[in-house]
Amino acid sequence: MPVAILAIHAMTQPSSSLGQSILDHADALARFSDMEDGLTCAYLTPAHRDAQAQFAQWMQAAGMQVRTDAIGNVIGRYAADPAVADPRVLMTGSHFDTVRNGGRYDGRLGILLPIAVAGALRDAGIRLPYHFDVVAFAEEEGLRFKTSFLASSVLAGRFDPVLLDREDAEGISLRAALAASGLPGGGDVQALRAAAVDPATLLGFVEVHIEQGPVLLHHDLPLGIVTQIAGSSRFQVRVEGQASHAGTTPMGMRRDAAAGAAEMILLVEARCASAPTLVGTVGQLQVPNGSSNVIPAACTFSMDIRAGEDAIREAAIADILAGIQAIAARRGLVAQAERVPPVNNAPCARWLMDQFGAVLKKRGLEAFELPSGAGHDAMMMQRITDVAMLFVRCGNGGISHNPLETITAEDAQQAAEVFVDFLRHFRPRGS
Amino acid sequence: MPVAILAIHAMTQPSSSLGQSILDHADALARFSDMEDGLTCAYLTPAHRDAQAQFAQWMQAAGMQVRTDAIGNVIGRYAADPAVADPRVLMTGSHFDTVRNGGRYDGRLGILLPIAVAGALRDAGIRLPYHFDVVAFAEEEGLRFKTSFLASSVLAGRFDPVLLDREDAEGISLRAALAASGLPGGGDVQALRAAAVDPATLLGFVEVHIEQGPVLLHHDLPLGIVTQIAGSSRFQVRVEGQASHAGTTPMGMRRDAAAGAAEMILLVEARCASAPTLVGTVGQLQVPNGSSNVIPAACTFSMDIRAGEDAIREAAIADILAGIQAIAARRGLVAQAERVPPVNNAPCARWLMDQFGAVLKKRGLEAFELPSGAGHDAMMMQRITDVAMLFVRCGNGGISHNPLETITAEDAQQAAEVFVDFLRHFRPRGS
Repeated sequence: MPVAILAIHAMTQPSSSLGQSILDHADALARFSDMEDGLTCAYLTPAHRDAQAQFAQWMQAAGMQVRTDAIGNVIGRYAADPAVADPRVLMTGSHFDTVRNGGRYDGRLGILLPIAVAGALRDAGIRLPYHFDVVAFAEEEGLRFKTSFLASSVLAGRFDPVLLDREDAEGISLRAALAASGLPGGGDVQALRAAAVDPATLLGFVEVHIEQGPVLLHHDLPLGIVTQIAGSSRFQVRVEGQASHAGTTPMGMRRDAAAGAAEMILLVEARCASAPTLVGTVGQLQVPNGSSNVIPAACTFSMDIRAGEDAIREAAIADILAGIQAIAARRGLVAQAERVPPVNNAPCARWLMDQFGAVLKKRGLEAFELPSGAGHDAMMMQRITDVAMLFVRCGNGGISHNPLETITAEDAQQAAEVFVDFLRHFRPRGS
Repeated sequence: MPVAILAIHAMTQPSSSLGQSILDHADALARFSDMEDGLTCAYLTPAHRDAQAQFAQWMQAAGMQVRTDAIGNVIGRYAADPAVADPRVLMTGSHFDTVRNGGRYDGRLGILLPIAVAGALRDAGIRLPYHFDVVAFAEEEGLRFKTSFLASSVLAGRFDPVLLDREDAEGISLRAALAASGLPGGGDVQALRAAAVDPATLLGFVEVHIEQGPVLLHHDLPLGIVTQIAGSSRFQVRVEGQASHAGTTPMGMRRDAAAGAAEMILLVEARCASAPTLVGTVGQLQVPNGSSNVIPAACTFSMDIRAGEDAIREAAIADILAGIQAIAARRGLVAQAERVPPVNNAPCARWLMDQFGAVLKKRGLEAFELPSGAGHDAMMMQRITDVAMLFVRCGNGGISHNPLETITAEDAQQAAEVFVDFLRHFRPRGS
């Protein structure tokens, strides 16, 4: 099932069926799912293993050398022209794990498109003066172990061994899951450390991704160049009150954890509506073991806060945390907010952005620049190399993390053609 | 392990150890639990079966004839004086199932106290001119099948066979649970119908219960006579919005089901604070399958609304339901509130209340009257016979549905003595 079934005569004009082929492969990949009616691909589940095997097969069919590393990343190399001595590596890739009932292009487009491009280059007999590595990152969404960037943190040499003790909803630790996975190293810390790439070998990291928002759609543009990737701060908040009888406890004598949490959720919403790039989300919310006739003794929720600038985000967080404590104090509740280590904003490299911009202009497209509100694997890779991102227009009003997420074959085609041009005209930094 | 270990010489002065004995039995019963560190006794669990067997044993030890009916009620009869022809039945009782991590007196006091009283009467050689039936009701809280008054509805001939298809959290239907229970009839509808008591045989139904609120404590009184039992209305509300990416969807473009639900919860709280006897509780709250980086597509919560008068409750409900729809419309959400069949206010019978009042006054106590905010088995029994309730002071600020629920041995003693006097001086209606 080779990705690039076409022979491309002139790489400035890849066949128009490349875009449709990428979408078809995303459809095929979406059949590997942890759920029946929708796409969920959590880290190291059977569906995840099937997806890994499928990527390896597609990479091989596209003429790449394939290896799987200790965290489960599948890495395909379209090897450099043999005439080039000591070639360095231009890396691309994105993640193939998903959120629960997610979209089929989120992450996966950034793997399938480069594989298709590599296949087309191979079919056209074109060699590049550098190794072109495509990484299918095994985990970015954090669905199973509540830890995002697991896969890219290993590749970037930033893996935190404390995470090995993190447990999924069924009490299986990351360590146990890796030991049972059949992956090289079986979860051994040394093997995970050894899987890091040497930054000195890298020319840079570029990532193609569906925008996951409405900006390109609103501007009627198929593609955009990312200026920076917004940092995020996540919290797990636990509010504690006192259980009591729903029928006999007067409203004025209650210490209702859920009512307190409700007020805090509206505070997050109101505060984050006060600055343009600021967003705040309570995505998880629960009264543990709630009964309809018992005043909630506890309520837990997650909080995800992001902004175009670190300072804007941190100011909002300070206000929200203070507000949560004020609400708790007024209501006789106790609130604890546990901060998940924050990820700061990651700026993209101007020289890489400019090379994408030059290609876009040459093709008669606007070199439109926009920030990314979502986190991406490029964010972790930015810690060890220069990065850039190419956004592809998201249909259906820009909806993502949802089965309604969509892109068009025409936009995928444009992105593939731009990516081919970018690779062919790529010049290392400072050259 | 007989309840009444004492010989009572004159029934106007039961031994002062009766109160402590009742508390000791509540402690012993609390050891049968579905959870390790706390008391949970859900319908037809192993702990529930152990409690049933224990009640049967204690009833027999107190000189009662014992039977278990088709829904699991354990019914002990302290038979009437054989000299009385065609004796009728004065019934008492309460429930022994609990909420999750509940108190040990809620419901159970109203079984243990009458058993202790029956044992004391037997020991003193005292016969009553009527059958004295003590019912250990198998289910009132609705924890397992989300249906309260299951046990009393069978006894009152008001069982709804539709409930047999109701499933617990693990997908086990009430029908299957009854079939596996070993109870007579095995869940057969005819057997459940046949378990109804003939109202013509009843003299009335009286229930002793811990107050579950702070009123008697506030008035420094050990006992109170209930005027009426407040009706309740319960709803299951489902709010639906649209899942989308937490990082890329501007605040103004969101259709966040959890934020909408938060606003609705605060509406319930504010509206129910506007009238003295009105209370409203959101006890269950959840974003199903929530992820921290996904805007919630759905949020579900329960709503329990009660008031001293049906009209006050219904007016609040109308306002709240309208408010929920207004919030949903403004936020682009869809909200559906499914009403669990409401229970109207149940007034207590003045003639029974007066007989309790006369006993209290004779003992130098105030015949203090108060409404019950909580629902009780007496509420269902009131559909087929006259009812009264005796409330016992609740310690710890009136907290209930909580492990901190408590009563004193002295108050239990007072209640037992009042109950003995009530039984000995009982006169049927109109006589």
